[in-house]
Amino acid sequence: MTLRARHAIECAEVIVGYDTYLELIRDLLPGKTTIGTGMMQEVDRCQAAVEQAMDGKQVAVISSGDPGVYGMAGLVLELVAKYPLPVQPEVSVVPGISAVGAAASILGAPLMHDFAVISLSDLLTPWEVIQKRVEMAAAGDFVIAIYNPKSTRRTTQIETVREIVLQHRGAETPVGIVQHASRPKEKMTISTLDKFTSEHIDMFSLVIIGNSQTYVVDGKMVTPRGYQL
Amino acid sequence: MTLRARHAIECAEVIVGYDTYLELIRDLLPGKTTIGTGMMQEVDRCQAAVEQAMDGKQVAVISSGDPGVYGMAGLVLELVAKYPLPVQPEVSVVPGISAVGAAASILGAPLMHDFAVISLSDLLTPWEVIQKRVEMAAAGDFVIAIYNPKSTRRTTQIETVREIVLQHRGAETPVGIVQHASRPKEKMTISTLDKFTSEHIDMFSLVIIGNSQTYVVDGKMVTPRGYQL
Repeated sequence: MTLRARHAIECAEVIVGYDTYLELIRDLLPGKTTIGTGMMQEVDRCQAAVEQAMDGKQVAVISSGDPGVYGMAGLVLELVAKYPLPVQPEVSVVPGISAVGAAASILGAPLMHDFAVISLSDLLTPWEVIQKRVEMAAAGDFVIAIYNPKSTRRTTQIETVREIVLQHRGAETPVGIVQHASRPKEKMTISTLDKFTSEHIDMFSLVIIGNSQTYVVDGKMVTPRGYQL
Repeated sequence: MTLRARHAIECAEVIVGYDTYLELIRDLLPGKTTIGTGMMQEVDRCQAAVEQAMDGKQVAVISSGDPGVYGMAGLVLELVAKYPLPVQPEVSVVPGISAVGAAASILGAPLMHDFAVISLSDLLTPWEVIQKRVEMAAAGDFVIAIYNPKSTRRTTQIETVREIVLQHRGAETPVGIVQHASRPKEKMTISTLDKFTSEHIDMFSLVIIGNSQTYVVDGKMVTPRGYQL
């Protein structure tokens, strides 16, 4: 957590967030009103936050990772924009450590060069669009970071990703998998492009596929920037 | 700055970094040894840090943004790996707020969907590789974040980026430009794909080109995730 994020929470009268995330900042909550909801209730939760702010309250919507990367920042801005500009509450987006940045730091330094970030969740995006992005990222030799790689319901997409990237990169290309980055249950695995889908991957995992130059040294995944050493 | 980064600096005996960044954390430096160097001396600076650590010192290499995104983390790991594993100093990468995350938060919420991060610096990467990546990112309808868009010496590449992306997206696609993100001289501009290169862009700028769905509302750049509102 950044000093700025902690300050924003400390200054707020109302804290809105997914129940699990409220639990993670329990120490900061005494004396504050909290509005917690379960997963998949993003619109209701952000709408409640906007209504509290319209009532004149200082409100913090909390999010894990960076609220500006697949997070709640966009939804809050879209909901606020439904009110006329003169009465809109002011919104500040406080950037955070993104899940991809946290996962990269645990694996070593895989993001030293150009990278693409893709979510495999097809709840709000057609699979054809996602697959095209995987193809383009693979063809462009981007390091590829995958959010939402697999869920109980959705298991085949990560296999398709593996097949697409194998058409462009060697079987031995390093692939890192991080679960619960920066949380007590944090776990990391470094595998290879041909084998990584046999590792445990779930909705708490972030997968980083190296580019053609990425290598593993002493258990760390490194994408060289190109310095002469 | 995160609480963890501040703690790492507080615990270190030796702080190594580009002079300008040492100046930004002056308040944390009393009582510590500092090793500062100018730009373009990345290898010397990281080598000095590794040698201090080999001497048994607790060392922090500081970096602006996220040291794991085009930062010093990879170089430190590569230099440490030149020593035999049993005598290597232990390295922890402390993730930070990436420049792209900071810039996005200032513009609104442009990174709510899949994005590609590309540096236009051709000092260590052939221009053909960079151009191919721009083409693939444009074809995949990624939001595109551009590091090192332009320097005094290198001025034409951002024009080529504009031409490539215009082959795939409308002239009115929003483009955000942020200078000195999270610093006192911070400045942001929101323009359009056809016109953004006439805005001031320099080596302190980060450029974010929206995808086909990105729009501007009340002065904020938003890429919708796809929620029904």
